[in-house]
Amino acid sequence: MNSFPPSENEVEIRYKKLDREAEEGGYHLNPDREFTKNLVKGLLVNEKRFGYLSCPCRMSWGNREEDRDIICPCDYRDPDLDQYNACYCALYVSDAVLQKKVLVSSIPERRPPRSERKAVAQQEPVPGTGKQLPFPVWRCRVCGYLCARETPPLVCPVCKATKDRFERFM
Amino acid sequence: MNSFPPSENEVEIRYKKLDREAEEGGYHLNPDREFTKNLVKGLLVNEKRFGYLSCPCRMSWGNREEDRDIICPCDYRDPDLDQYNACYCALYVSDAVLQKKVLVSSIPERRPPRSERKAVAQQEPVPGTGKQLPFPVWRCRVCGYLCARETPPLVCPVCKATKDRFERFM
Amino acid sequence: MNSFPPSENEVEIRYKKLDREAEEGGYHLNPDREFTKNLVKGLLVNEKRFGYLSCPCRMSWGNREEDRDIICPCDYRDPDLDQYNACYCALYVSDAVLQKKVLVSSIPERRPPRSERKAVAQQEPVPGTGKQLPFPVWRCRVCGYLCARETPPLVCPVCKATKDRFERFM
Repeated sequence: MNSFPPSENEVEIRYKKLDREAEEGGYHLNPDREFTKNLVKGLLVNEKRFGYLSCPCRMSWGNREEDRDIICPCDYRDPDLDQYNACYCALYVSDAVLQKKVLVSSIPERRPPRSERKAVAQQEPVPGTGKQLPFPVWRCRVCGYLCARETPPLVCPVCKATKDRFERFM
Repeated sequence: MNSFPPSENEVEIRYKKLDREAEEGGYHLNPDREFTKNLVKGLLVNEKRFGYLSCPCRMSWGNREEDRDIICPCDYRDPDLDQYNACYCALYVSDAVLQKKVLVSSIPERRPPRSERKAVAQQEPVPGTGKQLPFPVWRCRVCGYLCARETPPLVCPVCKATKDRFERFM
Repeated sequence: MNSFPPSENEVEIRYKKLDREAEEGGYHLNPDREFTKNLVKGLLVNEKRFGYLSCPCRMSWGNREEDRDIICPCDYRDPDLDQYNACYCALYVSDAVLQKKVLVSSIPERRPPRSERKAVAQQEPVPGTGKQLPFPVWRCRVCGYLCARETPPLVCPVCKATKDRFERFM
């Protein structure tokens, strides 16, 4: 991890690690290996520069606190996968893309402008105050896995059941 | 994925995928490889015919909505593993079966008749209405994993702790 | 699993299994292989003697019920990883140790004395009685994973996001 730019070998090792982690959790890297390795290279450049995997397709502030939501995988990956079958960079794609049932098209930026992000961070929910939950909780009907997000995941990370096997739990 | 019936190679590839996914989540395929590959072949036949992995041991309606609960892994696998050490097809077995501590015997059909399934779907819980949770929530004492099901899983999918390491959480 | 003490081959097989399970869940075994294999050997000795993986660095009562909290991975691993970058035995270490950013030092025993453990077991929370939750619930901002523990995990077991990507959910 000393050379700059990252060596081909570093890119290859990280690519394999990210691919394995993605598959274990029910996610998929873009099957276009050259495209994907180029993004991985961008991630490694950012890691060397900033100390964390800042999104290669977005401007970094060089400050982990400010960039926390765009450390890859970013906070917006899963909603984008749900709505557009790919994340903003198209580093992660849905199973439907992998199966060539849909094509990846242009994905609009979902990240709110900086002023709104700051406002959201300040109105952080206060747990235990009887207020409503900040996200719905989904339950996998197969294995009981619970997660809190706008919509269920495309695939259950535990048993790989598909999105339509989830039900609203809380 | 074009030939019909599925080729031996297609069966082998899917078998390996299902085996890997099972082990990652703390599940196990039946160690009798010939028996298991025959079930995988049945799954692939159904996938080609209906477009989804309908249970090879049950009658399919050929309609994803009607068959949603018997798409493999089915909604009944985990309760059957808990009670009988195997799912209805014996495609999935418990660790106790793998260790030859127990034998798989005949497993009664847990799936309710069609009329009852429809009734259950209509009385779907309304979250946020202060009603009781539809399933108890279990917590792994080791890693904090939460899941909602009748009984805890045989093995924690995250840290592989056994069932007796879970406690009721909600 | 018949010889006593465990053969080198048995140790090697179990070592690989534990290593794979650790990595899949976002944990890491100690990279010092000789040290780690010695602990694995101790675990296997305990498994043969008691029937479960009692912690090799603690006294066992030879009774699963009494030792439940020290079956490896023990109930104390994750708080120790969080605070000391390693579990009591140093079988499991944090990513920071793996990256040689911190060194493992001596870890105090976190397990309460037997009398306190018994008292805690008796005041088990009664779910559904409107009482406060026994642990805070954390949510991964990336994938929505939920877990209940004193602090968030060092790494999300589903999407491998780091601890600072978690927020308090309940």
